[in-house]
Amino acid sequence: MAAVYEVRETISGFLTGDALEQLAGFLANVHYADLAEALVAFDLDKQLTIFRIIDNAKAAQVLFELERDQIAPLLKGLGDQHLAQIFREMSTDDAADLIGDIPEDEQEHYLSLMSRSDAEDVQELLEYGEETAGGIMATEFVAINKEMTTEEAIEVLRRTARQAETVYYVYVVNDQEQLVGVISLRELITAPPGARIKDVMRTNVISVNLHTDQEEVARVVKKYDFLVIPVVDDDGVLLGIVTVDDVLDVIEEEATEDFLSLANVHREGQYLEMNDIQRAVLRLPWLIALLFGALLAGSVIQFFEGTLESVVALAFFLPVMAGGPGNVATQTLAVVVRGLATGEVTSQQALLVMLREMRVGLIVGVVCGSVLALIAFFWQGSSTLGVVVGLSLACSMILATALGSLLPLIINRIGVDPALASGPFITTLMDVTSMLIYFSVASVLLLNYLR
Amino acid sequence: MAAVYEVRETISGFLTGDALEQLAGFLANVHYADLAEALVAFDLDKQLTIFRIIDNAKAAQVLFELERDQIAPLLKGLGDQHLAQIFREMSTDDAADLIGDIPEDEQEHYLSLMSRSDAEDVQELLEYGEETAGGIMATEFVAINKEMTTEEAIEVLRRTARQAETVYYVYVVNDQEQLVGVISLRELITAPPGARIKDVMRTNVISVNLHTDQEEVARVVKKYDFLVIPVVDDDGVLLGIVTVDDVLDVIEEEATEDFLSLANVHREGQYLEMNDIQRAVLRLPWLIALLFGALLAGSVIQFFEGTLESVVALAFFLPVMAGGPGNVATQTLAVVVRGLATGEVTSQQALLVMLREMRVGLIVGVVCGSVLALIAFFWQGSSTLGVVVGLSLACSMILATALGSLLPLIINRIGVDPALASGPFITTLMDVTSMLIYFSVASVLLLNYLR
Repeated sequence: MAAVYEVRETISGFLTGDALEQLAGFLANVHYADLAEALVAFDLDKQLTIFRIIDNAKAAQVLFELERDQIAPLLKGLGDQHLAQIFREMSTDDAADLIGDIPEDEQEHYLSLMSRSDAEDVQELLEYGEETAGGIMATEFVAINKEMTTEEAIEVLRRTARQAETVYYVYVVNDQEQLVGVISLRELITAPPGARIKDVMRTNVISVNLHTDQEEVARVVKKYDFLVIPVVDDDGVLLGIVTVDDVLDVIEEEATEDFLSLANVHREGQYLEMNDIQRAVLRLPWLIALLFGALLAGSVIQFFEGTLESVVALAFFLPVMAGGPGNVATQTLAVVVRGLATGEVTSQQALLVMLREMRVGLIVGVVCGSVLALIAFFWQGSSTLGVVVGLSLACSMILATALGSLLPLIINRIGVDPALASGPFITTLMDVTSMLIYFSVASVLLLNYLR
Repeated sequence: MAAVYEVRETISGFLTGDALEQLAGFLANVHYADLAEALVAFDLDKQLTIFRIIDNAKAAQVLFELERDQIAPLLKGLGDQHLAQIFREMSTDDAADLIGDIPEDEQEHYLSLMSRSDAEDVQELLEYGEETAGGIMATEFVAINKEMTTEEAIEVLRRTARQAETVYYVYVVNDQEQLVGVISLRELITAPPGARIKDVMRTNVISVNLHTDQEEVARVVKKYDFLVIPVVDDDGVLLGIVTVDDVLDVIEEEATEDFLSLANVHREGQYLEMNDIQRAVLRLPWLIALLFGALLAGSVIQFFEGTLESVVALAFFLPVMAGGPGNVATQTLAVVVRGLATGEVTSQQALLVMLREMRVGLIVGVVCGSVLALIAFFWQGSSTLGVVVGLSLACSMILATALGSLLPLIINRIGVDPALASGPFITTLMDVTSMLIYFSVASVLLLNYLR
């Protein structure tokens, strides 16, 4: 934080003094992530001045870090010639992300500024699903033929290192461009001189398919502690690589999505960049759905109007009865949804997970029910009322653990992301069932024993 | 998944046939993460047989991947001599994690199996806070003196590569062991021969302090797309490195913690490894707290008992009134808490964020309030009741956005993790205030105009 502030102040000072040469010297030592953060404070003219000073490789990185609405004016302002130079320094996955955010009718123009092979690569990347391995992979990688010697391989690396996204792993292909092995730079350097690649490479390469979901890619990279993972097509032909920095973004993106979904905020794109009306529109559908759910619970109360009129004290416990089981259901749901997301829980274990959750529900329900029964007895001076609220709460809570675990498992099995779909369902389901349980128990026990 | 299943079946086949030599050949090509997953299916004797076959480096990695309760019997079964060899292959951060999980009175014994310098390093790591840079760093890194030539540096790497956690970045220190620069392996290889390190290294090294929180470490690594980050003490002396695979674990760990906290499940350690009673104990405090909160809301209803008796229909809308504003508050809370976690929102913007959320609340409240007013009018045939429920819901929802954004910002400013502390507070706060608003509005409007 402090660093960015200093960067901004220093740039501002040099710009005011028109000391562009000193500014260039200073900017050469600023990390692109800091520069991108500092840049936001300046107007377009000053931003363009800065872009003209820094080298093209850094310009490419800074451009990629910026938010969508800042990029459009910059692209126009930089001019085609300068932009063509910047694009040359940009990796194809970054370029595809950038171009993908631009309105379709302008994309062609920017593609025309790239080299023909880059433009073809970017166009291909744009065609893969945005959340698949193909959509997040880079096409800059070093592949060597399995027949080379280690010296020849090191020579290839020395020549191509600057273009490649990463050279820490070198992939080995056969004459059909199929992935057959991998060797780390570390292994290459420490290999006996004169050895052939095919004799020192590792042959058990773990790769992902073009169409693998990005969440699954992240899971594989995390499990195997990879820095890079190769992406192949259905024939095993090596097409690209996904690097761990992209995986970090995927994991955070997916975590944000799951987190907000649990609170019934379903976002697309950058929530924090939206205006008030967009935000409201995003939240309203779920609130309205929940509103109707709660009204359904209200109509259950209306159905039992007679019971309520006889014992108005029942109303004092409505907040507990409406909230308690809902909270238990959300707890259970969260544990199961997160377990599914991290791979600790699988759909195959549905029955096991549900039984485990119901055992927890039994303990939690009996404890909370007993506490509530005691409070009700001392507060309202009626042991029957105590039994009614305690029993109802316990039953509802046990049911809540069953539904809270089953629902996401079922949703997951039919192939929908349980984090996105479970929230409003479970709240409404618990609202209605706990009202039903509460007033049924009350009608039977109170009306028969109290009067 | 399929891979692990195959690994397990193949191991099982070789073990049954007592074909240990073939098994050894097979296991040499299995990734440690897969082997660790497959291992769980076997009993201790078979696990020990497998450990005796694989090489010590892989044994160290497999051991580290296993869950806490599986490790203890293995450590005892492997025997001190074999264990000493395995520890030699284990990085100090992994060893510290492993030893940290063992009861304190047994730690000394396992430390005595390590080399003296390793044991000292591990002991030191154990003393740093578990969730700080010092607690997650490894002490295996390659540092070279700034006066060396690039050839000398490459020679050092060639000698030490096997011991170091990573050699993709080489840190440069002065004679006082202070971090003064960095050079990537890529830059080292492509540097002009004969150059001195101090002339080709980058001097603007970003590092973290020993005591920096692991969440902040993850944020820095993610922001700068690092694979490794150096850890220094207060004097700038290089003490260790944190690698990106550890950062992946931190990000997932923190995301899980935040996600479960939003549902009021506050976990320590591995929730999914707990037994039923431990799970229940973890969930109960929050459920009981929420229960008392809801009872407080119930006592508000009791206070307005007269109003409720005059118009029983008010009870039909209790689920909406109790749930709606709570849902809005949770949405707001989630957006702000996640924003704080990813660094998109800062405490300094408190007033700005609150005003923005309240504008969204105004739209959401007016829409939901109008919908509810219309439904109430057609359902209960009373326009006054419609106005009461609509107005109450709208006011409560706007208040919900104010409280839902302010609460986490205040909690964050006093230095507590808002994800952990905000949930139950906000629910109770909204339960009570929305009941107050509902029955106050009802008392004023219904009692004055209806009769």
